[in-house]
Amino acid sequence: MQKTLGYAAHNNHSALVPFSFDRRELGAKDIQIEILFCGVCHSDIHQARNEWASSKYPMVPGHEIIGKVTAIGNAVIGFTVGDRVGVGCLVDSCRICSDCVDDLEQFCNTVTFAYNSADKISGGSTYGGYSAQIVVDHHFVLHVSDKLDPAAAAPLLCAGITTYSPLKHWQVGSGDKVGIVGLGGLGHMGVKFARAMGAQVVLFTTSANKIADAKRLGAHEVVISSDMQAMQQHLSSFDFILNTVAASHNLDSFTALLKRDGTLCLVGVPDHPHPSPAVGNLIYKRRQIAGSLIGGIKETQEMLDFCAEHNIVSDIEIIPIQQINQAYERMLRSDVKYRFVIDLASLNSA
Amino acid sequence: MQKTLGYAAHNNHSALVPFSFDRRELGAKDIQIEILFCGVCHSDIHQARNEWASSKYPMVPGHEIIGKVTAIGNAVIGFTVGDRVGVGCLVDSCRICSDCVDDLEQFCNTVTFAYNSADKISGGSTYGGYSAQIVVDHHFVLHVSDKLDPAAAAPLLCAGITTYSPLKHWQVGSGDKVGIVGLGGLGHMGVKFARAMGAQVVLFTTSANKIADAKRLGAHEVVISSDMQAMQQHLSSFDFILNTVAASHNLDSFTALLKRDGTLCLVGVPDHPHPSPAVGNLIYKRRQIAGSLIGGIKETQEMLDFCAEHNIVSDIEIIPIQQINQAYERMLRSDVKYRFVIDLASLNSA
Repeated sequence: MQKTLGYAAHNNHSALVPFSFDRRELGAKDIQIEILFCGVCHSDIHQARNEWASSKYPMVPGHEIIGKVTAIGNAVIGFTVGDRVGVGCLVDSCRICSDCVDDLEQFCNTVTFAYNSADKISGGSTYGGYSAQIVVDHHFVLHVSDKLDPAAAAPLLCAGITTYSPLKHWQVGSGDKVGIVGLGGLGHMGVKFARAMGAQVVLFTTSANKIADAKRLGAHEVVISSDMQAMQQHLSSFDFILNTVAASHNLDSFTALLKRDGTLCLVGVPDHPHPSPAVGNLIYKRRQIAGSLIGGIKETQEMLDFCAEHNIVSDIEIIPIQQINQAYERMLRSDVKYRFVIDLASLNSA
Repeated sequence: MQKTLGYAAHNNHSALVPFSFDRRELGAKDIQIEILFCGVCHSDIHQARNEWASSKYPMVPGHEIIGKVTAIGNAVIGFTVGDRVGVGCLVDSCRICSDCVDDLEQFCNTVTFAYNSADKISGGSTYGGYSAQIVVDHHFVLHVSDKLDPAAAAPLLCAGITTYSPLKHWQVGSGDKVGIVGLGGLGHMGVKFARAMGAQVVLFTTSANKIADAKRLGAHEVVISSDMQAMQQHLSSFDFILNTVAASHNLDSFTALLKRDGTLCLVGVPDHPHPSPAVGNLIYKRRQIAGSLIGGIKETQEMLDFCAEHNIVSDIEIIPIQQINQAYERMLRSDVKYRFVIDLASLNSA
């Protein structure tokens, strides 16, 4: 067992505080990683505060991890000490079900998440990336190019793959008109990816003050989604719309913008249900509403390689871990452009 | 102009009564059809009673038409007098938009429906199949095999294509597990088609008294959808579910039964919205909720040929046109197995 320092929530309402815990010993297939940076995902707040009613405490959040390999097990192949690597939401799965065999481990019924998940190896709970180091089965460790800024690459491990995967699955490419709804941690990555994939990108937002930033990030056009006249001009014209907004909202104004056979893909689960979508909008033009969940390990590596090739990272604000609680409050006010990333070097001054 | 006898609604609350109206003269591309049988679709009731707030009176309903060619225009090819033919929901469209070019005329923005639609040729309203004869552009006339019982073939023109088209679009075939929700005019056709396409067919119903009939019609298994324990046994196991129930109901118990990448397809528009579907059910397993609208002319012909090959028709109850108002009342009580078909020979005794 290896003593490890991190920051943990001890219940659903107190601030996160320094916490010392044990990581498992390095197994034959394991990689030990010194964590350099960890992105702060909105789901960290949900889980720290038990808003999904599945939290176990103490909880060390964090699943957007960038680090450096410090040790490898005997059976590890493809990695050496010193490599820059990433760890995302997934750290284990059964490896034999049809989802795992199809490289879609995120859908495996026995998947282990980076934190707040039963750890089948140690028997306890998994602890995430708000910590000094982590030990992970090599299958779930990603190569991260040295070309990418390591702090800005951290959010690729969740916000990145969550938006990349549906854009790829629905085969977004050159000649397609693609909508991205919402310009936050997920949405700003969606804009960058869709643009890099060659699509005509329209960003939908309720905030007029995001127009300039959306264009800087790659949107060809920005539509204020509350402007019904502006929305009408795009009726039945989109091949695909990626909706990154989790807050409850009317989906009909977006389904109406889809071409025949177009898909509105949701990646956020609302706390309160969206208004029931109009079935007539789906029947007319054979449209679809779908969901998508992060992505598998193979696709996450493909995404990271795509980022290295296209020089794509997240727009971030780096914080020391001592500011994590203030960061949570700012995120709840949408006061971040567009992702907080913890510099774990700050742990040493804790 | 040709005087034609039919039955019409004159307002949203009175009974349908005999009505004499003019059909247009035969144009060069037109086919004149003596109507032998016309199926009674639930949408006939909705429109006769102005429940979709788009009704024009007098209205002659009917879009499941089987008849005999009695005259053809100079430019008509592929049809001769005496041919058995069908006419469905569509009688005209622009023929140049991308939907028309792709043989999906049902999505054309200027499509003309068989009744209660602006007739671009005559300038008036279209009148449907509760009548002695009809004149239709040859592109919208279907060949119907003499092998099929003509009365029982009538519902294929709407109930048939509405269920066949989504099963084909989502590529249902051998090895697939397919659910059909509801055993009415649409559902009983869905069961027959899915079975003939080689799928493992499960019929979902709320009525235990439909079990035997569903199996007779081709279902391998029947699940009472209110039996949560029975539903649980099918979690994540369906490739495709065709939901033919228009009444507002909870969709979550069906989306949860879909495999990864599975689709729940809706073909009915509820009067009151369905409860908002759980987004979590879609995100987990990347499932989709879609809609589908009848089918194009090319696919309707393909469906009719499939029916001739597999000896598929609707289960029907033949009525004289004088009983149409009682038939509507019985349909509202779900008291029909599974489609009323009007024998238009009865018009002569009107």
